[in-house]
Amino acid sequence: MSDIETLIQELVQFRNERDWDQFHNPKDLALAINVEAGELLELYLWKSATEANVDKVKEELADILAFALLLANKYGFDVKQIVLDKIKKNGEKYPVDKAKGTAKKYNEL
Amino acid sequence: MSDIETLIQELVQFRNERDWDQFHNPKDLALAINVEAGELLELYLWKSATEANVDKVKEELADILAFALLLANKYGFDVKQIVLDKIKKNGEKYPVDKAKGTAKKYNEL
Amino acid sequence: MSDIETLIQELVQFRNERDWDQFHNPKDLALAINVEAGELLELYLWKSATEANVDKVKEELADILAFALLLANKYGFDVKQIVLDKIKKNGEKYPVDKAKGTAKKYNEL
Amino acid sequence: MSDIETLIQELVQFRNERDWDQFHNPKDLALAINVEAGELLELYLWKSATEANVDKVKEELADILAFALLLANKYGFDVKQIVLDKIKKNGEKYPVDKAKGTAKKYNEL
Repeated sequence: MSDIETLIQELVQFRNERDWDQFHNPKDLALAINVEAGELLELYLWKSATEANVDKVKEELADILAFALLLANKYGFDVKQIVLDKIKKNGEKYPVDKAKGTAKKYNEL
Repeated sequence: MSDIETLIQELVQFRNERDWDQFHNPKDLALAINVEAGELLELYLWKSATEANVDKVKEELADILAFALLLANKYGFDVKQIVLDKIKKNGEKYPVDKAKGTAKKYNEL
Repeated sequence: MSDIETLIQELVQFRNERDWDQFHNPKDLALAINVEAGELLELYLWKSATEANVDKVKEELADILAFALLLANKYGFDVKQIVLDKIKKNGEKYPVDKAKGTAKKYNEL
Repeated sequence: MSDIETLIQELVQFRNERDWDQFHNPKDLALAINVEAGELLELYLWKSATEANVDKVKEELADILAFALLLANKYGFDVKQIVLDKIKKNGEKYPVDKAKGTAKKYNEL
């Protein structure tokens, strides 16, 4: 089994043991990702880019990944494939010769 | 190579080809995750849980995963391990006999 | 009429003319605030603190304020009072002699 | 003095007594709004639209408003004016005859 499949299987088992699938509709999973993303962001608040507590970053990032994998699973997405597809699409929006060394959005390039 | 390692390698190559590592400090990567999480959330705004556009969910979720993997890579985290560690920790905060069938937070159980 | 009341009255009229109250339940208003907060945040992404486009900041901030006022109105909160109450409460969590000059959270002071 | 000016004056005094202006650059204030928006959102997580704890909603909403007012003040925006301007602009994006009774985005009307 691939790493991603292993993680999803563990997350689904954790959820099912607690009978939480009833709460895990796509909208609330999207909310959960935002809540966890906000908790990650708080670790950097009023701080320079490298001052966040690394152990806490680890935990908040794990929470974001967990809910993202559960949402992908809810829709039956192939996680590896959707990320590869998005990289390809971003490559078209941000061609190397235009995007190199600039942080501009694609519609400003 | 595991599928997570493959994704990280592709994302890092994409970033490096565009010389974007200079922008990708941990704080801005945490911001990027929040920006993408907000875009995912917008797909559910004013809608019932299942009315979001699935193709757009796929893309926004891919963006979140991409920045989460890049942030993990920036810190040198083992993605599989940090998620497994968090599942274990959550198992202690949410024991099955107390958490089953309820959406309460651990401090209200 | 106070300026806050004027704004709420304008926002409610705008909403009612479009028959949007049916969508404006508290949960979706909280989502809307997060969506707009993410759009504000994007204006600072990959940038130093002062490089954001000021006209766009103005608009995103106005959106956040608008949904915050609509949510307050939905619950019948007195906006001025809840902010004054929170300032008082924060004064207890962050007494001047402990909090002066430090960005630490109250539980780390 | 107007209600909004009173609130801003109180918030600025609170900040200055603690010598926190050094942390309150626009980017971190935008982060703070997102962090507080995430805390508001958490009150609705896994719940129906009306089940959130009202006292906590009051506090999180006050935090969002506080940081929004501080950010507006940082740029010297006239809060009442920027909200009125945005209502006018939204009126053009969402004309009553097209937008009435629908939650569609302006680019889908």
